[in-house]
Amino acid sequence: MLEADYVTTDPDVLEAYRSDQARFGRAGQPLALARPRETREVVRILEYAHEHRIPVVPQGARTGLSGGAAAVDGAILLSLERMDRILDVDEVDHTATVQPGVVNAVLSKAVADKGLFYPPDPGSWESSTIGGNVATNAGGLCCVKYGVTSDFVRELEVVLADGRVLRTGRHTAKGVAGYDLVRLFTGSEGTLGVITEVTVALRPAAEKPLTALAFFATPVEACRTVTAYLSTGRRPSVLEFMDRATVDAVSAYRDLGFPDDVGAVLIAQSDRGPAAPDDLDAFARAARECGATEVLVASDPAEGDLLIEARRLVGVAVAQLGDQLIDDVCVPRSRLAELIDGIVAIGREHGVAVPCCGHAGDGNLHPTVVFDAADPESVRRGQAAFDAIMALGLRLGGTITGEHGVGTLKRAWLETELGEVGLSVHQAVKQAFDPRGILNPGKVIARPSC
Amino acid sequence: MLEADYVTTDPDVLEAYRSDQARFGRAGQPLALARPRETREVVRILEYAHEHRIPVVPQGARTGLSGGAAAVDGAILLSLERMDRILDVDEVDHTATVQPGVVNAVLSKAVADKGLFYPPDPGSWESSTIGGNVATNAGGLCCVKYGVTSDFVRELEVVLADGRVLRTGRHTAKGVAGYDLVRLFTGSEGTLGVITEVTVALRPAAEKPLTALAFFATPVEACRTVTAYLSTGRRPSVLEFMDRATVDAVSAYRDLGFPDDVGAVLIAQSDRGPAAPDDLDAFARAARECGATEVLVASDPAEGDLLIEARRLVGVAVAQLGDQLIDDVCVPRSRLAELIDGIVAIGREHGVAVPCCGHAGDGNLHPTVVFDAADPESVRRGQAAFDAIMALGLRLGGTITGEHGVGTLKRAWLETELGEVGLSVHQAVKQAFDPRGILNPGKVIARPSC
Ligand SMILES: Cc1cc2nc3c(=O)[nH]c(=O)nc-3n(C[C@H](O)[C@H](O)[C@H](O)COP(=O)(O)OP(=O)(O)OC[C@H]3O[C@@H](n4cnc5c(N)ncnc54)[C@H](O)[C@@H]3O)c2cc1C
Ligand SMILES: Cc1cc2nc3c(=O)[nH]c(=O)nc-3n(C[C@H](O)[C@H](O)[C@H](O)COP(=O)(O)OP(=O)(O)OC[C@H]3O[C@@H](n4cnc5c(N)ncnc54)[C@H](O)[C@@H]3O)c2cc1C
Repeated sequence: MLEADYVTTDPDVLEAYRSDQARFGRAGQPLALARPRETREVVRILEYAHEHRIPVVPQGARTGLSGGAAAVDGAILLSLERMDRILDVDEVDHTATVQPGVVNAVLSKAVADKGLFYPPDPGSWESSTIGGNVATNAGGLCCVKYGVTSDFVRELEVVLADGRVLRTGRHTAKGVAGYDLVRLFTGSEGTLGVITEVTVALRPAAEKPLTALAFFATPVEACRTVTAYLSTGRRPSVLEFMDRATVDAVSAYRDLGFPDDVGAVLIAQSDRGPAAPDDLDAFARAARECGATEVLVASDPAEGDLLIEARRLVGVAVAQLGDQLIDDVCVPRSRLAELIDGIVAIGREHGVAVPCCGHAGDGNLHPTVVFDAADPESVRRGQAAFDAIMALGLRLGGTITGEHGVGTLKRAWLETELGEVGLSVHQAVKQAFDPRGILNPGKVIARPSC
Repeated sequence: MLEADYVTTDPDVLEAYRSDQARFGRAGQPLALARPRETREVVRILEYAHEHRIPVVPQGARTGLSGGAAAVDGAILLSLERMDRILDVDEVDHTATVQPGVVNAVLSKAVADKGLFYPPDPGSWESSTIGGNVATNAGGLCCVKYGVTSDFVRELEVVLADGRVLRTGRHTAKGVAGYDLVRLFTGSEGTLGVITEVTVALRPAAEKPLTALAFFATPVEACRTVTAYLSTGRRPSVLEFMDRATVDAVSAYRDLGFPDDVGAVLIAQSDRGPAAPDDLDAFARAARECGATEVLVASDPAEGDLLIEARRLVGVAVAQLGDQLIDDVCVPRSRLAELIDGIVAIGREHGVAVPCCGHAGDGNLHPTVVFDAADPESVRRGQAAFDAIMALGLRLGGTITGEHGVGTLKRAWLETELGEVGLSVHQAVKQAFDPRGILNPGKVIARPSC
């Protein structure tokens, strides 16, 4: 094995790094863990792995939900966590350059100190890394206004499968010189190269948001509100949906004084400073016109924090219900109501609870299948419900994953979504970047049959 | 040759389709011109060309400025101009699906009739096609606020080199299922596949813009205004720069009542309706603080049209000066003043006029080298100045092309920008999509040496 002070084969350490946050996947037995501090060391690892045809699994903070960072048998786990330096924050050009192991929250706070704003805000922002966010093209609550991670990535340094170092993209706001490889690496889940440096675009700091919350008797009215409100041309900085089961779980976990018998909730925010009250009035109007039973508009940011608290508690509240498998379908927003109704029907059919919340403004929902991991029959039913939800998403013109990625969890479903030609083009791209198939093998797509 | 009613070999017709709007490139002698009406016919052409290893040059409206749509010897010119149907405008999901030959202005007007807005607005919008805009990732005036073409492309149908039909991307606002092939095709200038259908995102209609114009003694103060204004967090819908030579050319062409001895002009617009006057006040304040000699703020959209008229006249006014070669460098906006000063110096050194205007908010300028095509020495000096400008752009951390693309005009410079590893990755991608090298050969990158 590669001898270096940043490589270990200690079984306890390997065990600690074997898995990410995905359920249902079997993580493999790794050979070693490498934790380089510099690009030069990543190069050495890749050169070695390439020469000896050893699989390499890039890892950020392993908060991934699809098995992308989970070990593969005989692999070198390549954790970027020690490459955690912020290299530059440019206050004129509004860019930041970081090593991949910088945690999202660390970057966000560092730029906030300079009056700047890094919008992509996955729920995992306090632990997930910028490298992982780029590799998965992470989304979050404020994407509905600001876009996803890829909308902020300008330039990458990538160590290729054979150890060569590629710099691609540029520091400028625009540019069309050559193919958009930055976008190709973004969201490629470690299968095309190892990201060792990232330059992201920043924005001037936004104002503290104001918040409104609307209750509905059924999801249909909430969905109608979403399309009505977005047709006004206003861009909420947050527009989140919670279904009845989610609201019930949150209320059981902590009494927020919500009315009984809530069928659905929408939470909207605006960070447009002086224009925010007007935005929320427009939201309240749209909600009422679409049949909201009650609308609360916070009069200051602090009161708003109480309203958005309901959304923040979803993860921990739903976790009380049992083991969970978080899905991540995304549909055109005109089909949102059908998706939500369909999910309820699927839960009923398979006899599992599926509380559902998500980024309504983007049509991106996270139905969470609740099951009992100790009961094989419950596991089977949970898995069946999970699959049925993806099938429904595709039937509604959507995608199997809006932001969590494919990993191993959704590899079979990806083939369905891509179709035969799409799959073969993916294989050709993979082959072009990684002819020996050492980069995160078995993730996203199976090895080309050739 | 392929027999079909959509194929012609008439020499006069071929001659008419041989070139685009680029200067300095020699267009080749094509074999035939195909003008299919349906994807099925594009498939037949590609299958034929693939089998017989005949080059294929995709063409939109041939308004390109870099030779991308110019004929290659022995090629089939594949014009998409007859595939010009708008297939769908979705008023709920805010998307439009079109064939590639739809002219930008036709789409823009069609969606405006439904209260929607397709932002990408290249100067050629009244003639260039959506297919061409996607293939070049076209920019325009309002990119500074809304982004470029690629920010609006959601789904593509692409006929691959061997005639297979790929659908890639999705109708949804978000999605991370597989590699981002949509972005890879966008800006690939016809070298990776032929785009036969495009789904773009739309926005609700914006308000009519208000306009302000600031005069400066030198470019430095204008550039300082750009960074100062953008640091306020306001996003102008237009933020354009014109240098002294450009202002002089416009004033010579039409008297707009500008003061004498203008060193530089900035034009800003805001389309934020009730917030627009406040935006322009902030712009005026920033301009004055940075040393503007005079600031005009239009009190209504009609008065604003007069102010932006100066920018609209640039093309025709500069054309009066002689033959021209339009450059398209883009730098980080902190380097804009250095770029502008450097361009003046380059013009002086090479003895050519280089009026310069462009999208200041994005750091993307169009220095226009004026020369006399009938005088070989002038041509030589013009070409030398053109090259020196790209070298300067790269030296300032920028790119050789912000929006016009590489084509044949900038192929050698692309190699410099990409570097050795970048170039070889580009060649590997090209090889994966077009192993026989029939798609727009010689454009963007030379054939891999293998
Ligand atoms: C509580 C919780 C909330 C979450 N909320 C969201 C959310 O709102 N939105 C969202 O999109 N996701 C969310 N996620 C999922 C996850 O946090 C994101 O996918 C995140 O981007 C992963 O970052 P990471 O550093 O943990 O990467 P990892 O999980 O370690 O890796 C993820 C993938 O990226 C690859 N990778 C990591 N680093 C590199 C690198 N430097 N070079 C190449 N490949 C690399 C890995 O091989 C793997 O395929 C959530 C997860 C949790 C546990
Ligand atoms: C007056 C004027 C102003 C301009 N202003 C701008 C501006 O502001 N911003 C800007 O970005 N550009 C501008 N341009 C350049 C040009 O208009 C753009 O590049 C435009 O996008 C080209 O569109 P087109 O339909 O004319 O494509 P063409 O010129 O015909 O083709 C351009 C490239 O795209 C390829 N292509 C075309 N259609 C397809 C297809 N369906 N599938 C695959 N490949 C295809 C061609 O092979 C070629 O490489 C301007 C040009 C002029 C003449």
